[in-house]
Amino acid sequence: MPMVFGNLNDNSGTGVAFTRDPATGEKKLMGEFLTNAQGEDVVAGVRTPMPIAQMEEKFPEAYAEFIDVCNKLEDHYRDMQDMEFTVENGKLYMLQCRNGKRTAQAALKIACDLVDEGMIDEKQAVLMIDPRNLDTLLHPQFDAKKLKAAVPMGKGLGASPGAACGKIVFSAEEAKAWAARKEKVVLVRLETSPEDIEGMKAAQGILTVRGGMTSHAAVVARGMGKCCVSGCGEIKMDEENKKFELAGKTFHEGDYISIDGSTGNIYDGVIPTVDASIAGEFGRIMAWADKYRRLQVRTNADTPRDAAKARELGAQGIGLTRTEHMFFEGDRIAAFREMICADTVEERVAALAKLEPMQQSDFEGIYEAMEGCPVTIRYLDPPLHEFVPTEEADIELLAKAQGKTVEDIKAIIASLHEFNPMMGHRGCRLAVTYPEIAEMQTRAVIKAALAVQARHPEWTMVPEIMIPLVGEVKELKYVKDVVVKAADAVLAEAGSDMKYKVGTMIEIPRAALTADEIAKEAEFFSFGTNDLTQMTFGFSRDDAGKFLGAYYEKKIYENDPFARVDQIGVGKLIKMAATLGRETRPDLHLGVCGEHGGDPSSVEFFHKVGLDYVSCSPFRVPIARLAAAQAAIKNEK
Amino acid sequence: MPMVFGNLNDNSGTGVAFTRDPATGEKKLMGEFLTNAQGEDVVAGVRTPMPIAQMEEKFPEAYAEFIDVCNKLEDHYRDMQDMEFTVENGKLYMLQCRNGKRTAQAALKIACDLVDEGMIDEKQAVLMIDPRNLDTLLHPQFDAKKLKAAVPMGKGLGASPGAACGKIVFSAEEAKAWAARKEKVVLVRLETSPEDIEGMKAAQGILTVRGGMTSHAAVVARGMGKCCVSGCGEIKMDEENKKFELAGKTFHEGDYISIDGSTGNIYDGVIPTVDASIAGEFGRIMAWADKYRRLQVRTNADTPRDAAKARELGAQGIGLTRTEHMFFEGDRIAAFREMICADTVEERVAALAKLEPMQQSDFEGIYEAMEGCPVTIRYLDPPLHEFVPTEEADIELLAKAQGKTVEDIKAIIASLHEFNPMMGHRGCRLAVTYPEIAEMQTRAVIKAALAVQARHPEWTMVPEIMIPLVGEVKELKYVKDVVVKAADAVLAEAGSDMKYKVGTMIEIPRAALTADEIAKEAEFFSFGTNDLTQMTFGFSRDDAGKFLGAYYEKKIYENDPFARVDQIGVGKLIKMAATLGRETRPDLHLGVCGEHGGDPSSVEFFHKVGLDYVSCSPFRVPIARLAAAQAAIKNEK
Repeated sequence: MPMVFGNLNDNSGTGVAFTRDPATGEKKLMGEFLTNAQGEDVVAGVRTPMPIAQMEEKFPEAYAEFIDVCNKLEDHYRDMQDMEFTVENGKLYMLQCRNGKRTAQAALKIACDLVDEGMIDEKQAVLMIDPRNLDTLLHPQFDAKKLKAAVPMGKGLGASPGAACGKIVFSAEEAKAWAARKEKVVLVRLETSPEDIEGMKAAQGILTVRGGMTSHAAVVARGMGKCCVSGCGEIKMDEENKKFELAGKTFHEGDYISIDGSTGNIYDGVIPTVDASIAGEFGRIMAWADKYRRLQVRTNADTPRDAAKARELGAQGIGLTRTEHMFFEGDRIAAFREMICADTVEERVAALAKLEPMQQSDFEGIYEAMEGCPVTIRYLDPPLHEFVPTEEADIELLAKAQGKTVEDIKAIIASLHEFNPMMGHRGCRLAVTYPEIAEMQTRAVIKAALAVQARHPEWTMVPEIMIPLVGEVKELKYVKDVVVKAADAVLAEAGSDMKYKVGTMIEIPRAALTADEIAKEAEFFSFGTNDLTQMTFGFSRDDAGKFLGAYYEKKIYENDPFARVDQIGVGKLIKMAATLGRETRPDLHLGVCGEHGGDPSSVEFFHKVGLDYVSCSPFRVPIARLAAAQAAIKNEK
Repeated sequence: MPMVFGNLNDNSGTGVAFTRDPATGEKKLMGEFLTNAQGEDVVAGVRTPMPIAQMEEKFPEAYAEFIDVCNKLEDHYRDMQDMEFTVENGKLYMLQCRNGKRTAQAALKIACDLVDEGMIDEKQAVLMIDPRNLDTLLHPQFDAKKLKAAVPMGKGLGASPGAACGKIVFSAEEAKAWAARKEKVVLVRLETSPEDIEGMKAAQGILTVRGGMTSHAAVVARGMGKCCVSGCGEIKMDEENKKFELAGKTFHEGDYISIDGSTGNIYDGVIPTVDASIAGEFGRIMAWADKYRRLQVRTNADTPRDAAKARELGAQGIGLTRTEHMFFEGDRIAAFREMICADTVEERVAALAKLEPMQQSDFEGIYEAMEGCPVTIRYLDPPLHEFVPTEEADIELLAKAQGKTVEDIKAIIASLHEFNPMMGHRGCRLAVTYPEIAEMQTRAVIKAALAVQARHPEWTMVPEIMIPLVGEVKELKYVKDVVVKAADAVLAEAGSDMKYKVGTMIEIPRAALTADEIAKEAEFFSFGTNDLTQMTFGFSRDDAGKFLGAYYEKKIYENDPFARVDQIGVGKLIKMAATLGRETRPDLHLGVCGEHGGDPSSVEFFHKVGLDYVSCSPFRVPIARLAAAQAAIKNEK
């Protein structure tokens, strides 16, 4: 192949161009051109290139030919092209072309335009969009110009996308207090716990020193669609004195900080953010995705607000409502702690009775928000010690409320200590030891459904009750019997023939291994891939950060198994459970409600395995819809 | 059937008898007889029955007939008979007969005698013995008469069989100090930790407030063959003031207590113990068992003493040497802590260099004790935080030794904290992050083997190196590469062509699921059924005590899955791994080294699955030998 020279003389030149605008997707030639230059001169920045349009004046013939070539290339590749070319003595030579990189916004517009131009069909348009990029369209972003000028002072994990800028606070209480007086704050913590949830809601973003992509902060933030940078181990934290050190500088309460939950970058000072906008093309692509996907997409939502957001983003139901977050709010935690500290079944029942109407009203709110779509409610899952007070003052308060001594309360708290809470007294094990809890939750679910059904006769309410952490069919049967008895009593009293379903999570390896037995009692399975991944790999997501870095570095693992489902090991269990379960119950409804429900490559795996739905956090719903469509199209027989 | 009357007149009577002595097994008629009485009178204790021999004087004809019947029954049932009979007007009527219950000692003698009498063959003799009963023959027992008079004041779990009597001490240090001045002590603790091992060795027995059958105290005590009662929650412990309350009484340091590790009973004061003796029949039965079993029986042993004991009890090798206990002794813990607190690889290597000769000499001792039998050495397994000091004084000492501040050391200790240590930075994950540890252990293993080989040219030393907690073949490959490089360097330097094997534990569900891949790198598999059970069920043995009681009560589980292997769930993984592993490597050597290796029903399962060996604590070796023989005989094709 002969070499051509753009720097031969002034009748020569070189350029790079896109057939469409890679930032907006607009259909117009975009590019730059330099006379008497080679390719490296255009990108080197030494000389200032001219806009491609000016090439027309300089080399009208070559330009006309170039336009013609652009059209031919687009016709051929049916996509926006990124091209390099040279003009030697007025004659055009194309050096290379490839499908051009583009922003998420541009990708949507280009795909829609190509369909309108008859270049591609809807399925091809759906396949053109990288689902992971949609994330950036759904969250506030830094002002691009200001960001360009900023230098990160540190880096954590991009745990929940979006950008946040605000004043530093060190506790959930301060976050709430400052937000109440209209201050924008970023909550900086060693790590977060369920007690921080209200503070997290109040903050623009969350920055933690410890924890990985599936730490409490990361999971909750993603659920909220809130920006979060987690696990920035460089921070030297001094929570007590409300300060921390990073990059050699000490930051105090009230200092400004900016964090980017997509990249994990942390910036000193203010970088303004801009709200994201959803353009019309977004809706068109989503509509096509919905047309071609087989997998249903549900959401994980614990509040009416999250549920409504997910519905807006296209969720077809709720695959996971965690009921435990509800117990942390306001006066509920007091009643919940009374329940924990009860000495007798009667005392426990009395404390639970206080919680029942609150829980019922929570469920009503969620049912209303979901407008009659299916809602799966998971029963109490975390170990009880997550709910007990740690502050001396709170312990005293509880002692007083319970008519017990501070020592008694401390003894109860000590007795709840666990060596490995992840593998402890939680999930349905709570319902086996304290069936009263499952009874209360059942009454709340059924009463809420009856109330909403009465208000909306046009909906058909079918509550889905999900028992977590089952490992043995007799265990599920025991809890199911408690649930059915309580539910049927409420229905009988109301004279209602409303249907309800009782199913289970498959999140313990033994449940997957014995899924044929478990399906005898379960009307649906929902794979809890977070816990299933933890148990199958034998490492806890909260602790794995200590060694996973070495595993990536040494190429032992290529992906975070908590972010992308491990198809070989965990996937084998999922396939086994799906097959065994359907052998017992051919109409068994199968879904997934772990973090993986919003990961495109995992969604394709779930499609192939034959699940009925995936469930993910509200802001991942569009991603899952698109990924599900791509999976269906790619795997068409 | 007509009713006969033993209380018709003085020419009538009734009795119960055994064809052999149920306490000793001696072949002579044993029983009691009452004239003019019905069956209930013999057992009611109102009248004192006469020895059966006196019946001959009273009813010579009936007695002669009875002797004849006894012989016929034994000939028919080929076992010792327990019979009830009545004499009515001088005529004998047999009421019932059944195989009689007997002591472990009697069972052995009866089985041997029956073989000698030509009544049964060796296989039938082997099948007659309940392996679980052998336990009582291998440990000190309470003086039977004194025990009969004693009333237990409390009850825990019979965690490790045998009886112990001694003065109460509350710490490992005191146990050692008191034992050094020839005091017999019982160590009473809330729970034990690896730091207590020396104290446990010094004590007659161990009593803990918390922990189940597989708690640290229970596992270590069984390994030592030391009596242990665990999990006596009734005890109100006050370790600080060296006292506890039980059954309304306060016990202080130095008070006498007696505990029974078979029944879990706890007694106030002194009950003398007697040493167990192994009679000649024991050896005969064991020889027959060895003749018919297919499974090899190895032992779990960490010290030359345990190894020698196991060898004496018939172990054919070591299936598991834990290397971590070695690091707690004497000055080693200091060097180990230096290793943990090292800032650089060089510092870590220097600290490890101090440990290497100690570890080598440990291994030499074990190799010597095992007389050339195979020895599998497992590399460092527990998380590092188990080794760091908790006492302020020890922290100061470490800081001084390390040239660091107390704050630095505390920061290091804090950084080692784990939320779920069972699923944390342990096992081969330590070798991935700190390959220096595996290098040091490899040099110690190979050098020890070379030294012992030189001393015993008649042995063929083939060290077996076992990598724990593998979940992915690339992880095993990485560590194996480190091991092979270090081993080959030592061998090359020594000019030796000694062979060695590198294998892995299968104790993570993912390892079982991907065993075909893992077998590409592993020369042997050893199922770690303790951890595999924990991960497969998703509960930790240390925490499961909080809810397993409710599970037994509600008939959800019938057995403790840590005591008897769960054949349905965990067993499925074991079968899968055995099959997949041998598909890749047909000569793959398969064993088990969890607690289940000494449980008869589990041993039968392992036989059926086709494992090559089981490994159990020294005092369970005879049980495993017998259980393996029974499994082979029962499952003969």
